[in-house]
Order: sequence, then C-alpha cells, then structure tokens
Amino acid sequence: MKALVLEERGKLSLRDFPVSMQVGPNDVRIGIHTVGVCGSDVHYFTHGKIGPFVVDEPMILGHEASGYILEAGSAVTHLKAGDRVCMEPGIPDPTSRASKLGIYNVDPAVRFWATPPIQGCLIPEVVHPAAYSYKLPENVSFAEGAIIEPFAIGMQSAVRARIQPGDIAAVSGSGTIGIMVALAALAGGCAKVIVADMAQPKLDIIAAYEGIEVVNIADTKLASAVAQATDNWGADVVFECSGAASAILDLPQIVCPGGTIVLVGMPVDPVPVDIVGLQAREARVETVFRYANIYDRAINLIASGKVDLKPLISATFAFEDSIAAFERAAEQRPSDIKLQIQVAK
Amino acid sequence: MKALVLEERGKLSLRDFPVSMQVGPNDVRIGIHTVGVCGSDVHYFTHGKIGPFVVDEPMILGHEASGYILEAGSAVTHLKAGDRVCMEPGIPDPTSRASKLGIYNVDPAVRFWATPPIQGCLIPEVVHPAAYSYKLPENVSFAEGAIIEPFAIGMQSAVRARIQPGDIAAVSGSGTIGIMVALAALAGGCAKVIVADMAQPKLDIIAAYEGIEVVNIADTKLASAVAQATDNWGADVVFECSGAASAILDLPQIVCPGGTIVLVGMPVDPVPVDIVGLQAREARVETVFRYANIYDRAINLIASGKVDLKPLISATFAFEDSIAAFERAAEQRPSDIKLQIQVAK
Amino acid sequence: MKALVLEERGKLSLRDFPVSMQVGPNDVRIGIHTVGVCGSDVHYFTHGKIGPFVVDEPMILGHEASGYILEAGSAVTHLKAGDRVCMEPGIPDPTSRASKLGIYNVDPAVRFWATPPIQGCLIPEVVHPAAYSYKLPENVSFAEGAIIEPFAIGMQSAVRARIQPGDIAAVSGSGTIGIMVALAALAGGCAKVIVADMAQPKLDIIAAYEGIEVVNIADTKLASAVAQATDNWGADVVFECSGAASAILDLPQIVCPGGTIVLVGMPVDPVPVDIVGLQAREARVETVFRYANIYDRAINLIASGKVDLKPLISATFAFEDSIAAFERAAEQRPSDIKLQIQVAK
Amino acid sequence: MKALVLEERGKLSLRDFPVSMQVGPNDVRIGIHTVGVCGSDVHYFTHGKIGPFVVDEPMILGHEASGYILEAGSAVTHLKAGDRVCMEPGIPDPTSRASKLGIYNVDPAVRFWATPPIQGCLIPEVVHPAAYSYKLPENVSFAEGAIIEPFAIGMQSAVRARIQPGDIAAVSGSGTIGIMVALAALAGGCAKVIVADMAQPKLDIIAAYEGIEVVNIADTKLASAVAQATDNWGADVVFECSGAASAILDLPQIVCPGGTIVLVGMPVDPVPVDIVGLQAREARVETVFRYANIYDRAINLIASGKVDLKPLISATFAFEDSIAAFERAAEQRPSDIKLQIQVAK
Repeated sequence: MKALVLEERGKLSLRDFPVSMQVGPNDVRIGIHTVGVCGSDVHYFTHGKIGPFVVDEPMILGHEASGYILEAGSAVTHLKAGDRVCMEPGIPDPTSRASKLGIYNVDPAVRFWATPPIQGCLIPEVVHPAAYSYKLPENVSFAEGAIIEPFAIGMQSAVRARIQPGDIAAVSGSGTIGIMVALAALAGGCAKVIVADMAQPKLDIIAAYEGIEVVNIADTKLASAVAQATDNWGADVVFECSGAASAILDLPQIVCPGGTIVLVGMPVDPVPVDIVGLQAREARVETVFRYANIYDRAINLIASGKVDLKPLISATFAFEDSIAAFERAAEQRPSDIKLQIQVAK
Repeated sequence: MKALVLEERGKLSLRDFPVSMQVGPNDVRIGIHTVGVCGSDVHYFTHGKIGPFVVDEPMILGHEASGYILEAGSAVTHLKAGDRVCMEPGIPDPTSRASKLGIYNVDPAVRFWATPPIQGCLIPEVVHPAAYSYKLPENVSFAEGAIIEPFAIGMQSAVRARIQPGDIAAVSGSGTIGIMVALAALAGGCAKVIVADMAQPKLDIIAAYEGIEVVNIADTKLASAVAQATDNWGADVVFECSGAASAILDLPQIVCPGGTIVLVGMPVDPVPVDIVGLQAREARVETVFRYANIYDRAINLIASGKVDLKPLISATFAFEDSIAAFERAAEQRPSDIKLQIQVAK
Repeated sequence: MKALVLEERGKLSLRDFPVSMQVGPNDVRIGIHTVGVCGSDVHYFTHGKIGPFVVDEPMILGHEASGYILEAGSAVTHLKAGDRVCMEPGIPDPTSRASKLGIYNVDPAVRFWATPPIQGCLIPEVVHPAAYSYKLPENVSFAEGAIIEPFAIGMQSAVRARIQPGDIAAVSGSGTIGIMVALAALAGGCAKVIVADMAQPKLDIIAAYEGIEVVNIADTKLASAVAQATDNWGADVVFECSGAASAILDLPQIVCPGGTIVLVGMPVDPVPVDIVGLQAREARVETVFRYANIYDRAINLIASGKVDLKPLISATFAFEDSIAAFERAAEQRPSDIKLQIQVAK
Repeated sequence: MKALVLEERGKLSLRDFPVSMQVGPNDVRIGIHTVGVCGSDVHYFTHGKIGPFVVDEPMILGHEASGYILEAGSAVTHLKAGDRVCMEPGIPDPTSRASKLGIYNVDPAVRFWATPPIQGCLIPEVVHPAAYSYKLPENVSFAEGAIIEPFAIGMQSAVRARIQPGDIAAVSGSGTIGIMVALAALAGGCAKVIVADMAQPKLDIIAAYEGIEVVNIADTKLASAVAQATDNWGADVVFECSGAASAILDLPQIVCPGGTIVLVGMPVDPVPVDIVGLQAREARVETVFRYANIYDRAINLIASGKVDLKPLISATFAFEDSIAAFERAAEQRPSDIKLQIQVAK
C-alpha cells in the first residue's frame, strides 16, 4: 500500500510502505477516508523532530483520521464491517496504573500515531483497537470525523476547566487549538468566550460564531477586555493557548477570584509565572495533555448540531496531492485553520 | 400603595397595604416592573398553605420580580437610581454558617418573599438588599428579568449536576420547572436533553428548542428512549422534575454507570427508592433547594442569546388584572407555562 | 488441588477440583496464603443464591485473599516470583467503556470470584491478572492482606464521600462493613466518627479505636447524638451501612446543610426516602458498588500504621478446618468481625 | 489600654493606644489571652512593610489570637460572656460577590489584623464580629487556640488539595507553614508525608510525628525520595511551601500522573515554571490564599486529638516581654517554630 512517508527532515514521499495488517480479536481493520494535517506533522516535516522525538527512520505521517470498518476482530461487539468511524490516535496499555484510573492519556506506555517510532495513518488501511475506534452517526461526515482529534483537545480543556453554566471564559491565542478550545468552552456551558490574538484573519474566523467576542491584542489587552465584559470581576475560566510568555505572565490579571486557568499552550522552555498573583486570587490551574474519554462526547456535540466544525476545514486535498497539502501547511497561511487529505476515493 | 393581597385561602384583594420603605445603607428601593405568577403563589391562593407554611394573616403574593432602582443606600456601590434589576426573593443572614460556606440557600434564617410571614412583591415598590439585586443588561427585558427566578432553579440543578460538555441528559416531567431544567442543562453543556411527560402541549413547547427530544410516556418509557439514544449506556444525567413515585422508582434504569441523578421534583411524602439499583450503577444523587450564586450566570446566558425564555411567557396581565391572572393560573391550562403581571405602567 | 467447594445450598466439601492453571503473558500464578470469610460466601452457603446469582453448579468459595507469586507471565514487570500480594477479586474488561472511565467496578463484564459462575479462591493456587494483584510491603502481614478486600469497601465509601479534613461523620450500622467504613473515614480525614447500632458487642470493638464515638440506638437516636456533637449543625458525612428502612428514612435529620450521605448498606427491596427532607438540606447522596483504584491506597494506610485492622480478625482456621470456619460464620456470633482461613501451611 | 505598637520600622513600644470598643449587635468584645508571633509581624518589625503594605502610622501587631468573651452583641446567639474563643483575623464584607460564593478569603474588601492600616490584636481587649469568633472546646488550650491561625493555612492547603484517603504527599520546605501543611495533610487522609528541607533542626521537629518522613535536600533530592517511596509513580499531592525557584522548577518530577500541586510558598517575583513538564503529567495546580471556612474543622481535629500542635510552641513570653519575643523571633533560631505572647495574666 502507498503511504505518505517522511523519509527524513524536509523530504516526503508517497510510496509503498510495508505495514502489518494482522487483526487481533479486539482489533478492527479500517479503511482510512480522511486525515487532517496537524501542526505536529508539519513540524516533523520541517524540523525532523519534536523535543525528544526524533525521526530517525522513515515514518508515515498523520494521526487525525476517520474511516470505515473493513473487518472486525472476533471479540469486537460494538463495531462491524461498514460502520463509519473516527479513531483516537493514542493507544495506551489498558491495564496500566494510569489507565485503571481513567487517565489513559498520561499512561507512559501510550503508542501514538506518527510519533517516532510509531507509524501514522496516511495510508489506505490501518489496524486499530476497537476500543479506541468510535462509530460516527449518519449526520457526521468523514471530514468532521477527522477533525474530532484536534477538537478533542479543546474538549479535554473544557472538561478539565469544570465550566459552570453561564461562565465567562477568555482564550489567549486563536490558533487551531485556541479555536477548538473556544468552541468547546462555548458548547460546554460558557455564556461568552473572549478570544485574543494578534492575527486578525484567525480572529475573523472564530468571530463568526455566536457567543464569541474577539480582541486584537495589538489594540487592546485581554485583561482590559475581560474587565470590561465582567464588571472588573475577571473571567471565570482562562484558557491559555498561545504558549507566549507575556500571556502567561498576565494570567492573574485576567482570572476572577476563585477562578480557573487551563494551560493548553506549550511553551518550549520554562517561563516565568506570577505565583503570588495567582495566590491572591486563589486560582486553580489545570494542565492538559491530549485527551481521554472525550471522543463520545465530542461526537455527541457535533451530531446534535451544537458544534459546527465544518467552517474550519480550509481546504481538502486528494491523497495523490498529500505532499502539496504539507507544503501549503508549512506556509502557515493566516486564514488556514485545518487542511485535510482525502485518502479514499 | 396598592398591593395584591391574599386575605385568606381563596380570597385575593388589590388594596392598600402598609409596608415599610426604610432604606438601609446596603439596601435599594426598587420600583417593581414585572412579577411572574409561581405555582407556589397559586397554591397559597387555592390551599392557604404549603406544608408547614400557613397564611394566617393577609400576605402580599409574588416573588419572581424585575424592576428599576429608585434609590440606593449610602453604602451601595454597584447599583444606582435608574438601573434595571431583577431580584433574588430569598434573603439569608449573610454571616450564618451556611452563608459563609457559599450555600446561603440552605441558611435556615432565609426570609423568602411571599412565604408566611414574609410579604411578597406584587406591590409597586419594595426595599431589598442590594447584594441580592442584579443589574439587567440592556438587551434583557423586564419580562425576561422576572422569569429568571424559576430559571434559576433550572440553573441550580444544572450546576449541581456538574454537567460535562457533550453529556446526554434526561428530564422526567415537563412542567415549568422541568422546562427550565431542560433549557439550563442544554445551555450548560449537554449535547441533547430528552424530556418526558404525558402532557403533550407542554412537550410541544419544549420540543421547539433545538437539542431537545421529547417522549410522551403514555407511549414510550423514558428508560427505553434513553437506551435507544445512548446505545444502551444510559443518560449521563437524569433530572427528576415530576415528583412522581413511578418516575423515581425507575431512575436506576435511566442513568448510566457512574452517572448523576438530580432530584428537583418534590414528592409530598417519602417515596420508595431502588437503592440497590442505584448502587449497581454507583450513581451520584444530588438534591436541589432553590439556588445560590446563580443569578449572575443566568443573566449571562440570557444576555448572550444562548437561552431564550421569551417563548415561555404565555400571557401578561396588567397590575389591575392581577386577580384574573391568578384565576387563570389556577385553571392550570396545559399550554400555559408562565403568566406574568406588569406592575409598572 | 483440594478446594473448598459449595456443592449446593448447605453442603460444603474440601475436595479435589479441576482448575486451569494457564498463565497468560499478563497473568501471575499465586500461591494462596490467607482467605477471609465474607458474608456473601456464607449467604451462598446458607441460601444457595444472592439475588439473581444462583449456585447451580459446584463453586469454590472465597474472594478475600492474599498470597505469594509463584510465576509471573512474560509481560509482567511489577511482580516477580516470591512477592507477597493481595488481589482484587473482580476482573473487568479493561477496554470497556466503564473501565476506560476509571470506574471498572461498574463494568457489567466484571468477573468476580465466588459469584456464579465464577470460581472463588479457597484453593492452594490461582491464576490472576497481574494488574489486579498488589504487592504487600514487608510490614503488612498475609492476614492484613486478606482483610484489605472488605476494607476496600470502606475506602471506596470514604473516597466517594470526598471527606474534607476535620469533618464529623456518622455511621449507621456497625457490622463488618460499617466498621470498615468508620475506620476508613477516620483515616481519610474525619476528626470524629459517631457509629450507631443496637449490637453492643460490635460497638465495643469499634469503640476501642481513638476518634470513634458509639451510640446504642436502643437508648439514643443517632440524630440526637449527632446534633449534640455538632452544635445542632449535623454531620458532614453520613454513611448508611445498615440497610435498615428506619435508618434510611432518618437520614435528613442527621446530615448537615450541604452535607453528604453515602449509601453503603443494601436494602433488598425499595425503601421509602424522605426526598423533601434531603432537598431542604440540599444533601448529596453517593452510592457505592465494590471499589476501584483502592487497593494501593488501602495498603498505604495499613503500611504507614494509620489503620490497624488486626483487632478485627476474630479467629483464624487451618485450611483443613474450612468447613468449621463456615459453620461458625453462619452462627453470626455478635463478637465475630472477621474469620479467616489460612490456606498455606 | 497598653498595646504592642510598631511605631516605625525597627521600633516597638508597649504603650497606651486608643482603640474603639463599641460593640455592635453582631460583635463580641474579647479579652485577649494568647497571641502568636507570625513571620509577617516580624517582617513589618524588621522591614516596615510587606510588598504594597507599608507601615506609615503606628500599628498594633499580632493576628494569631485566642481569648474569652467579655460581652456579646444583642444579636449574637452562639457565644456568650465567658466562652473561650479563637478568632479569624480577616473580616470580609459578608455580602460581597466573593463572600456570597463562600470564598470570603479572596474578597478584596477583607480587613486583616496587623495589615496596614488595620490594627492588630496585641492588646488586652478587641471588638470582633461574632461570626469570625469560634468557641474552643474545653480540651483545647488558649495556646492551641492561638496557633490555629497558622494551622488554618495548612488546613486550607489540605482542603484545596482534595486529598483522597491513602494519598502519599510531599512537602517542600519545613518552615512553620510547611510543618503546618504536613500535619494538616496527614490528618486530612494522607498515609505518608515526605517533608524536604535543608534545615535539619526543623526536619527533626516534624520527623517526630508518626507518618512523616524527612529528606534533607543537602543529601537527597526530594524527587528521588518520592520516586523511591512510590515505586516511581510520584506523589499524589505536592505542597510547595518553600517559595524557592529550584523547588518550583522541580515540581513536575515529584508529582504523579494526574496528581496535584499546591502552591503555598510565596516567591517575591515571578519564577520559571516547567509548564510542559506539568502538562506531561496533566497535573492540577492549586493556589492558597489564607483560608475560609477552616476554623471549625481545625478545632475539630485538635479537640479529637488527631492533631497535636503543642510541640510546635517553642516559647511563651509574658505580655510585658513582648518586645523580647519579637527580638528573639527576628533572630530566626533554627529550632524555633512558634513563639507566643500571653497577654492575659
């Protein structure tokens, strides 16, 4: 089978690649339909590594996927051939201490698609555990199915925030993840979400959603916008999605007394935090690492129409044009939120 | 000043009634604009009592109110004359043990409008603590302000449920409170809310909201509808709003493993509960008593457009027609959700 | 291998019984050392069934066990031959929806020792998943290891109560489980635990622990004792361990405003609950079903000396005397808390 | 009345000082018995300010106090003349938004003893709101009553940690607050608390408590000690009480996956935090600001014997020797935990 292979930093091929297709009793064999291009895929392409994860051997890219069941293992009961599905890209050891606790996302044994040395899913077929494959309702498209993975990070952030109905939230950073977080926060009970960035094209895209207010921080500080919107009380929840040192330092000025901060953005190095400022408001700070037990609820929200992710799909490429898709992604056009590759015809 | 007075069981007068209008430093004097008619008001009218609360002396009815500030006490900073407001009808002792804990709704010292011997607010002016008076944004009408009180019970239910984004909820009972709970649950993060009743006119009203699915239990059991909607998993949250013994006995069949039940409906006498059934699912059961710290967030949701309560206002009466309003309320027309009285011209 | 077999209701044999000893890669083979006699074992012995679980075929009894590793499967890393262990008797499907959520105790697929048709552990050797086998520290004896199973129910109750440091708790019922709950609540942060029963010998045993106060309800109502101990505020947490209808009806009078009730006792049939009373205090009600993710923390507390379960072991029988152990257990002597059988020499 | 007055930086007098003794209906007049010397008192003495709080006018020091009721206001019901009490030193606006939420500690309007321009309590009599005065049981001494204030910070830390029974905790820093935190964590359900510092005399004092393990970080890293004690899993809860930048940077190596960090120590300036490290474990970070709703539960734990703070009272001075007490406190002797001044004869 042909796969999109990162041979080494900067070099992609669409070529035959041998992959085992052995279906265990709890596995399903899936025909891949659509795969989204993630910033991490692009980073491996342009840099050859992410932190300690180095591409030493050719690796198939892609981890945001939807598809359809070709074959179900003998012990699989909730899926059958023909079902449309989307897949969690990380496979934990289900009996590890973390998995037993329900936080399988932080199981050190997780094997995650397109994270060296694990192969990704930009290939026509994969074998995957049925337990991490989720049936798509009829009214959820393959394109939506493939964008659930990044949305799941937004959802995990919203879950960990423990939003209360009618909360006012602030989001610093309107990159793809910031947008996903804002939409999850809104769907998750916030009355209003104030999104801040300096990239106006991205702000324009998220501003089209009802309940979102945007702030261009070239003009206005997020803290000022929040103070005005909340009668100087502060935001109930602040989602930090920029990873920027200045945004992180400002957090105590944005959150309300007793409020919550969710750290989603990942600054490469340690950054200064105003601990005394956080203490003065007795803020709670949550951190987010991927997601666990999120796909069901993300699908529920898309199926019910409460969350519409379709406007975030900026362009769709044929599988043959996968390399062009990555080249465009590497351009980082300001109005591109999500590029997808359609693997199946 | 003229007030709507319940002289005794079954006998209402619109007549002069002496009320103190002394404004303390932390009080506001409020011109009442709109007052909703609550089932409890009607019950005092028709029965002369609710449980241990007996109308021994003439009592002004009404506790669901909005209005405008006429005068602010010397220590009041967040309100000024002319501000439009809605009011919490219960006034706790703010330094009681319960109030210090943030659960001022369960302070035994609470004085609640139109609960003997406390007077209600169907009168042109009241004095109220500023701390329990909430400014209405420009885009929230007096009518909406006056319906926040019953919506607050829905919101309290949703808060105590600790909804997670994308939950599937079930509501048994589509009376006024059941409807309020369903809308709060939806705004509070549920992907879908399944509402069950046997009164089709009320089901039709709530069914008009997106995200609501209705079940007429004359035809279908709620447990069956939930099983079908959730692939036999059960509802993440079940709000029991009927107070009916049969609905309460069925709860373990509706809730999912590890799920939550919120008891909102108030059965007069003790009712049988299937404790072993609840244990088998290790359900958590929350109970609700009025609300605390809810008005701000209810106003946020109405102001942002996430919750639209206007379709629930079935009719509005002039203050002069207050008695007619109560007579109609006592009829319990199946398509009446909320009747309101406009006190101000 | 000889095993203690319940042939049918009322008939026990200590006889050879064929059991598969195939050790999978994630399994361990364990030499059983000590097994406690549980009320459920005795109930199968005396009644032949518990609810829907009927002993149709000969079944080995016993599920409260400790032992030592004889052989570890090829993929097992945290245990090796010679390690002393105790075991969770319930084995879930680790990739079920409930298990993924961390609540593997409510996975409908759980296979539980000595629950028809699953065999128990009163036999010299068993094969068990390593993930549900827990290493015992040197200072925790096999006898203590085997009593961790009932203590785990107390711990699960204490965890679900979300005790805050310095809480005052009440426990209705001082049977084996009530005692375990009281000790777990005390170790888990309660300042004081008030235990109520009418069986004075059991009250005497638990009264010997510091921090425990006992009430014989033949003389004094639990509600009165709690009111006195808490200045009429009520107990922060009430653990209902009796399953008695009268105790369940009284719960609203015992719990404080905003407090917590944990339903541990299992009344066979639905029982009347004073829902309005619970609502007036806005109580939260938790239910308990076995335990999940508890063994590690139970072992921690025993190893650190904070919990001493040794006084609760009323007598120890040799494996050869297993039938005598069950006969004594069936007598239900008031001063017997836990009988154990030592399987290994 | 004579009071201990900080005239200006470095200059203390024991001299007459005029203080209003007007008792409002909700107030009590209290004869001060014992007052502890806090690090903040000493810092005002030696530096004349703490951050933005500058001693511009003569100020009475002291805020850790116990005493006895001399007179109760007309509306006070839970206290009467002769009752022994301890007092919360911070008085919030009870109807502020924060107070209504139950987090009165973060009410910006709090007036806190011995924080400019509010006078402290090193004076024979004070008037205080009854709501923030707590009755001491007979078996709790005035000395213990006066040490509840610093212990309350430990308790607030333990409450916010949401300890589960059997947790393993780590505490970095064994100053007075670190010790209070360690004891609160232990009483609050931890099986074991590992305390790290480089000051051996303080480690020796806390090491005398059962359940405490100490690590001198001159020899061993806290992360190593925790890894060894937890089989490389990490601590369930890490209480950071040192405020030291190096300890804060190390936090991700100490906490377990899904674990909790509580930031108690107050670094003067922003300090670098390893956010990606925290995310990799999906840690939750709580911050602490004083305490709210803690005194009742702290008193419960002392009264029940679960917490013994008496060994932490290093020396007691007569009121006449108050200045000597402050001079000794300023020496910061390594074996001094808490110095107290007995105001009443």
